[in-house]
Amino acid sequence: MLSNKTTLMQRKVMFILLDGLGDRPCRELNGLTPLQKADIPSFDFLATNGMIGRHYPLGPGIPPGSDTAQLSMLGYDIRTEYPGRGYFEALGWGVKIEKGEVLFRVNFATVERDGSNLIVKDRRAGRISGKDAESVASAVAEMDLMNGEIKAVLEHTLEHRGILILKGSDLVPDVTDVDPHEVGYPVLEPQPLTSSPKAKKTALALKEFVLKSYEILKDLGVNVERKKSGLLPANIVLPRGAASKLHIPSFMKKWGFKSAAIAVGPLYKGIAKSVGMKLLEVEGATGLPNSNFKGKIEKGLSALESGFDFVFVHIKGTDVASHMKNPELKVKVLERIDDALESLLDLSADYLLLLTGDHTTPCSLGKHSGDPVPLMISGKGIPKDDAGRFDELRCIRGGIGTVLGKDLMRLVLNYSNRASEHGLRPKPVEIPYIPKPDQLTPLSLNQW
Amino acid sequence: MLSNKTTLMQRKVMFILLDGLGDRPCRELNGLTPLQKADIPSFDFLATNGMIGRHYPLGPGIPPGSDTAQLSMLGYDIRTEYPGRGYFEALGWGVKIEKGEVLFRVNFATVERDGSNLIVKDRRAGRISGKDAESVASAVAEMDLMNGEIKAVLEHTLEHRGILILKGSDLVPDVTDVDPHEVGYPVLEPQPLTSSPKAKKTALALKEFVLKSYEILKDLGVNVERKKSGLLPANIVLPRGAASKLHIPSFMKKWGFKSAAIAVGPLYKGIAKSVGMKLLEVEGATGLPNSNFKGKIEKGLSALESGFDFVFVHIKGTDVASHMKNPELKVKVLERIDDALESLLDLSADYLLLLTGDHTTPCSLGKHSGDPVPLMISGKGIPKDDAGRFDELRCIRGGIGTVLGKDLMRLVLNYSNRASEHGLRPKPVEIPYIPKPDQLTPLSLNQW
Repeated sequence: MLSNKTTLMQRKVMFILLDGLGDRPCRELNGLTPLQKADIPSFDFLATNGMIGRHYPLGPGIPPGSDTAQLSMLGYDIRTEYPGRGYFEALGWGVKIEKGEVLFRVNFATVERDGSNLIVKDRRAGRISGKDAESVASAVAEMDLMNGEIKAVLEHTLEHRGILILKGSDLVPDVTDVDPHEVGYPVLEPQPLTSSPKAKKTALALKEFVLKSYEILKDLGVNVERKKSGLLPANIVLPRGAASKLHIPSFMKKWGFKSAAIAVGPLYKGIAKSVGMKLLEVEGATGLPNSNFKGKIEKGLSALESGFDFVFVHIKGTDVASHMKNPELKVKVLERIDDALESLLDLSADYLLLLTGDHTTPCSLGKHSGDPVPLMISGKGIPKDDAGRFDELRCIRGGIGTVLGKDLMRLVLNYSNRASEHGLRPKPVEIPYIPKPDQLTPLSLNQW
Repeated sequence: MLSNKTTLMQRKVMFILLDGLGDRPCRELNGLTPLQKADIPSFDFLATNGMIGRHYPLGPGIPPGSDTAQLSMLGYDIRTEYPGRGYFEALGWGVKIEKGEVLFRVNFATVERDGSNLIVKDRRAGRISGKDAESVASAVAEMDLMNGEIKAVLEHTLEHRGILILKGSDLVPDVTDVDPHEVGYPVLEPQPLTSSPKAKKTALALKEFVLKSYEILKDLGVNVERKKSGLLPANIVLPRGAASKLHIPSFMKKWGFKSAAIAVGPLYKGIAKSVGMKLLEVEGATGLPNSNFKGKIEKGLSALESGFDFVFVHIKGTDVASHMKNPELKVKVLERIDDALESLLDLSADYLLLLTGDHTTPCSLGKHSGDPVPLMISGKGIPKDDAGRFDELRCIRGGIGTVLGKDLMRLVLNYSNRASEHGLRPKPVEIPYIPKPDQLTPLSLNQW
């Protein structure tokens, strides 16, 4: 319909997010980054068919979590529209979330007692899985806290991972993490983040849950058996990422796109679901370096052909290799992704491609950093820079420059011919997306 | 006087704004942009005598209106200091504006009835002008609305353009546009932007005005005649850009410059007037590609010699060519501007030159985009980069980098030796311009 009304074609958008894409020079690669080392002609071809650049997901030097980074890159304001990690995990796993509940992402972990403290030995209890993990999970599946005033429910998800739900009155997600996020440190006392009695109550309930989980699990049969077999016991549950239900405007409302997402991990699925993206399944997609990248990208293409305007393809393998501190593996993952990108080399295609990462995960660190992340916007009609191939160094000089994660959706609207001129309506900067005329109410002569 | 007090010479500033300057590669120019194609030795000479770069007027990817862009580039915060387009148009046309009035820019337009809707056929009623436009204007010059509670006055300006003033109590500029801004869409119902009864009342009054304008104009004699002659009737008035009087700090107060402006269109004149710039007239200045560019620039130079510290020269021809989707014309306009810039090639001159656009208007789109805009700061004492000639590609790598429109005045103060060190006074970042010592109150011994 729009084609009758405007001469400019509004392009569809393929957003490929390579988790942990950026990197630093690696000793194992003779001082090259994985992107520099990898043989990736498809990346390079796409880069020369558009512009490259970099983005700081949250701001220069700030290492982001995947959730805050991705939410911000999708154009949401993480100061007011971020419900906490636990919410996304729960949503992605299909947990029914009620208002007033407080949700946490949890790990089954291994701790060792040191005086009155519990020192974290392994944050994943030797990546416990299968029947062992099920036994541990069922031992702490439900718990009464604070003399029955609060109920704790634990939903086991994959391997050492789970979701904790606190139910009861006067609970708020304003508490700090129990998980110290590093091995060798003591399990932390949860602290209320505000002076409200609700935050204090939630912190006390959380503390009781963690201590009880240790009491229940430390001598549990399965853990005694694990120790006998030289395996690490899962003798505590470590919550983090307090969250509660939060209504976030849909991606359609915010940016005007009918959108779909292809992702595997509950966190990423949860982010997509929270903004109303339709989740699409792909066979062989694992969230690991061996995932079916080709299948994911082809599914994305077919989604664009079947009525979606925006497809978000999340690929986790790059980040997994980085967390394993394995640059050679990251090179291989990039080369496998490059093969999969061959489906996108058709220059006559009409969609815009945004390809970038949600943060840099340097293999040398094995964790997220606050470095800038390589970025490309490619496709028909996109102005070209002369920056050449796609890597950390070339992206410094690219035509996009260095922007923030929150700028990406504006750039996408601009280069997909979907941006409206600001100043057309009052208070322009407060309205992120200006609806097209056919999304607005026409003046009716009948009311006259 | 200042020369006795400080060793650094505070430079004067010439700000040449080429409306819609930036562009994208054009098929008609074999993939070059107009700046790349044009033979513009004066631009290039000036670029090598300073630094180049780019700016995003409002932010990456945001297509700005000329008013929000220029206000932001002059260092005003459009979140709090933007009165709405109608205000500038009215001010630039010399309309006396009272507090409490709500102002709109309007077009005489052509609509066709489709059931209960009115579909926009031409937003300018075939660029109606002369006696026809006068007849239409006088038919809707005054109107009583809401049973006489509100009065509507329409000031005809040029051709199809005018200003609508709503007078009465409890009116606010918080209503959306009636004009859909695109042909083929229905005229829109004005929506209150807040839940206040005043916004609702204003929206209702506006709606009544628009419907009445259609009732009055649809069978007006002049329109019947126009249709007979195959011309488009001006059968509706389409308001946009709700605004009201807003006190904006003067350019002197904000940045310490005694300033003048050379501009033709009412919008640009209005912007300059709203910040207290003195408007200077130039013979042969038309706001079109044939304008007297040389006269405008020479007038600017003589203003700097006769007591002004800052001259804002607005040139519209570049944008006109872009809106006409005519890259060859834009090349010609740039080459005519290049001739006019010859007056500025004197390397011994002491002023700083800021030359840029207020937005990119790609000829391929025929409308404003959110692309970055080429920029140069040139003159004696300005550090030089090695970026060479002045075009979109070279500006990526220029010494200024990619900044925001709101950064420009800070850069101007810095390179004109007028910036004070921040932190010298409390809350420095909230004070855009720190007055010079002789603009502040001296300590008086008499009060002791």
